Amino acid sequence: MTEAADLRAHFLDEVGRRVGDVEIVTGAACATRYRDPFALVPSAGAEAAIRPGSASSVQAIVQIANTFGAALWPISRGENLGYGGAAVSDKCIVLDLMRMNRILEVNVPDGFCLLEPGVSFVELFEHLEAHDIPLWLSVPGYGLGSVVGNALERGVGNSPYGDHAAQICGLEVVLGNGDLIRTGMGALSGSGMWQRQKTALGPRLDELFVQSNLGVVTKMGLWLMPEPEASVVVDVEIEERETLGACIEALASLKRRGLLPDAPVVSNYLTKAALVSRRSDWIDGSTPLDVSAIDRVRKKLGVGWWNAKIRIYGLPTVLEIALHSTLEAMRQLPACTCTVSKWRRGAPKHLAPRGVPSGEGLVNSRWCGSTGAHIDFAWTLPLSGAEVLRNSTEMEKKLFATGLDYHSSFYVRDRHVLNVVQILFDQQDSGMCAAIDALYLSLIADAARDGFGMHRVPLRYRAHAAEMFGFGGHALAQCRERLKQALDPNGVISPTKASSTEKV
Amino acid sequence: MTEAADLRAHFLDEVGRRVGDVEIVTGAACATRYRDPFALVPSAGAEAAIRPGSASSVQAIVQIANTFGAALWPISRGENLGYGGAAVSDKCIVLDLMRMNRILEVNVPDGFCLLEPGVSFVELFEHLEAHDIPLWLSVPGYGLGSVVGNALERGVGNSPYGDHAAQICGLEVVLGNGDLIRTGMGALSGSGMWQRQKTALGPRLDELFVQSNLGVVTKMGLWLMPEPEASVVVDVEIEERETLGACIEALASLKRRGLLPDAPVVSNYLTKAALVSRRSDWIDGSTPLDVSAIDRVRKKLGVGWWNAKIRIYGLPTVLEIALHSTLEAMRQLPACTCTVSKWRRGAPKHLAPRGVPSGEGLVNSRWCGSTGAHIDFAWTLPLSGAEVLRNSTEMEKKLFATGLDYHSSFYVRDRHVLNVVQILFDQQDSGMCAAIDALYLSLIADAARDGFGMHRVPLRYRAHAAEMFGFGGHALAQCRERLKQALDPNGVISPTKASSTEKV
Repeated sequence: MTEAADLRAHFLDEVGRRVGDVEIVTGAACATRYRDPFALVPSAGAEAAIRPGSASSVQAIVQIANTFGAALWPISRGENLGYGGAAVSDKCIVLDLMRMNRILEVNVPDGFCLLEPGVSFVELFEHLEAHDIPLWLSVPGYGLGSVVGNALERGVGNSPYGDHAAQICGLEVVLGNGDLIRTGMGALSGSGMWQRQKTALGPRLDELFVQSNLGVVTKMGLWLMPEPEASVVVDVEIEERETLGACIEALASLKRRGLLPDAPVVSNYLTKAALVSRRSDWIDGSTPLDVSAIDRVRKKLGVGWWNAKIRIYGLPTVLEIALHSTLEAMRQLPACTCTVSKWRRGAPKHLAPRGVPSGEGLVNSRWCGSTGAHIDFAWTLPLSGAEVLRNSTEMEKKLFATGLDYHSSFYVRDRHVLNVVQILFDQQDSGMCAAIDALYLSLIADAARDGFGMHRVPLRYRAHAAEMFGFGGHALAQCRERLKQALDPNGVISPTKASSTEKV
Repeated sequence: MTEAADLRAHFLDEVGRRVGDVEIVTGAACATRYRDPFALVPSAGAEAAIRPGSASSVQAIVQIANTFGAALWPISRGENLGYGGAAVSDKCIVLDLMRMNRILEVNVPDGFCLLEPGVSFVELFEHLEAHDIPLWLSVPGYGLGSVVGNALERGVGNSPYGDHAAQICGLEVVLGNGDLIRTGMGALSGSGMWQRQKTALGPRLDELFVQSNLGVVTKMGLWLMPEPEASVVVDVEIEERETLGACIEALASLKRRGLLPDAPVVSNYLTKAALVSRRSDWIDGSTPLDVSAIDRVRKKLGVGWWNAKIRIYGLPTVLEIALHSTLEAMRQLPACTCTVSKWRRGAPKHLAPRGVPSGEGLVNSRWCGSTGAHIDFAWTLPLSGAEVLRNSTEMEKKLFATGLDYHSSFYVRDRHVLNVVQILFDQQDSGMCAAIDALYLSLIADAARDGFGMHRVPLRYRAHAAEMFGFGGHALAQCRERLKQALDPNGVISPTKASSTEKV
């Protein structure tokens, strides 16, 4: 046994002996479960995982880890596919919170819930359904992931509540030093206000635990959207690639006039194609889809080069006005078709444009065949049609030059645009994997050169992406390092996660 | 010279010698300027103040303070009247940022500005006016205060942007240890996204510097409201005290239906009375206004017992619908009168319900005469008519029992209600001042017993209010103390501000 393995075995023994409600997983079962299923570079997977059943067990484990100098890698459910899945850094022991899956509270009039990290989108949805609770979810592409984990990594959905981290209201956290805190009004014992107000006296700490390694979140309050009286969805099919700029401008203008509280999303033809077909259905060999293949895809599947989805919620009368303005704006775009779907409270729920989580989100990873996978590049751009079009064109060129298809979605927010590019590839093509690995690094550097930063990034590129935030001799990174030292002096929680010093 | 005075003199000498752009104030001019003009217990005022002209001067001063072990008390302009003004803790040297008053950027399409802390609401307003910039401010009662300072202390205004701290997007901060950081996209050198997205990769730190003593904010990005196409204001005069509960419920319902993005405010008769008259106009002696005096006030000034102000902004057609629903809801309240004021873009701006800062906010402090003052009690309640009414009645009873009038405003937010009670008093009545001092402490404890916490609190009561957040053996306070140690190890910035251990 190596010294490290020896230490790990002792640590796990101690955890098994002292912590009541815990499962420990090692060996092949562990290595297979805890790894990035979509990794560009195959890795061995984790050597050990601990599955606590309660916050007090988490606290005990973190305290023991401090004694042993063990490093833990908390995951809620480890399903952040496209961003590293359950991949952990070297030597870390997975702290898998999936067994902590209680829905502790759902409040209807005030629209919030209090969750443990193991609750999946599907479980929360089924709970709301079973109890006929008129609150709507905002869901990411893959519904088996954790609601808490997704919010903590700034996942997004399609609804006015689609910026999931922005809906966080009150946390319970086991800090790296083993202390257990409740943030905001949660620190006022017995208060019913914990999930009702985001701030209390003094600095708000919730955001400190987002995309962070300062502690383990064991409970999260989250605001949910009350069922609206009605809704309307406008699907806009856009024929020409170059119309993206005008479309973004039109949506920005509608948002600035207060007509679209939602973040409308504009995606290209591949979003649908990758869900319902494989690339081998359209083209031979491994070159990117060419113009004629793209034409075939679009004709066969009936999708535009770009497809905008605009959701509006509220009073039926208000919706009609917003719809009128939206259609007026969209119809000024060249060569586009609008389809309108309406829903009113009382109509069948399955027709409502609410977030319905699905385990099918994995499907599009099969675009390149049964060993297909994807890795996502999520970054932000200004709320400017010209800038978005220019950057989209550049990105497409770089992907094509690497032999990749272009799969891209733009979320139009109040003051910026979030762009998520899914890089779809075949995991067995090791040459392509190496090319993507190099491409990803260069995309991050190119973005930074133009003043743009990453929104969310797989573990493998985290340090490289963080490195770009270099103002004042990396003063912000040093500040974060001081915060890390303060709350996790022995570095037991995901020690390499926030660092800008460790490179790929 | 005492040892402390000696140290201070040496520190000031060193600052004067080494920092280029700085003014140093001591003696009577300092003591008079830097104190709480509305203090319940008279204090001597500060013994020294430093007024730097730039962020690099701030940084140099903080670095020198670290060397000397000097304690600084940063104020933006020190005009947070009702919450302690420019009062500083014992031995602290005021770091007055008023000279740093540049408006560094105003962006119209994306609705934001970048400010130094010395910019007042009046100055920002005049800048927007002078350049005919179609962005509206949200302003507090007193317009000579700092925009930055107000947001940092969670000040509020009447507009959809009225939660000022929530509009913060990107900070430049000199940490207690002397490092200068830029948060969010500001750390990506040359990025234009600093004020366009609140989050970048990793934890968001902006909220860490709100109601905080971890650093000195030297630049702040703030989102501003684009001028709407139209607006409508509904003033609701409510005759009966007990109707407050039904009014809050009705407003909550309108908000839940998405019709009122603004936080409507419900204030009692004294809000207007204190602005336009003095208590001696209505009653002799020092007993609280009685029923007949309140009747006289209301008849003469034409105000309700409660007065709700509801502002709606947007497209004229949408406004009509929101107005219709609002009037329908309000007219179901017993004994109330609605007055509607409309504005459309192009109509005279002075008729628009935008935030116009005023230096007149001080006037209501004169309610108790020329030596009148006020101290504010700002706390949060659930979004429930019954709870709000019950707590309002209790509060009024406690104030009356102390011989005070009841001046109260309720801001109806998405999931809770913010209640600001202005305690108006005569500073020369030392018996009353002592009674208010005791009352304030008991009000904080009573609120905590019922599960409610303070929103903002004068320095004098900060430790007592913080003490209420005791979950897990004051684990949150200990966490904040660790953060303080990390970013300000020598305790040079407002050392007693966040502590829950130092008592009044």
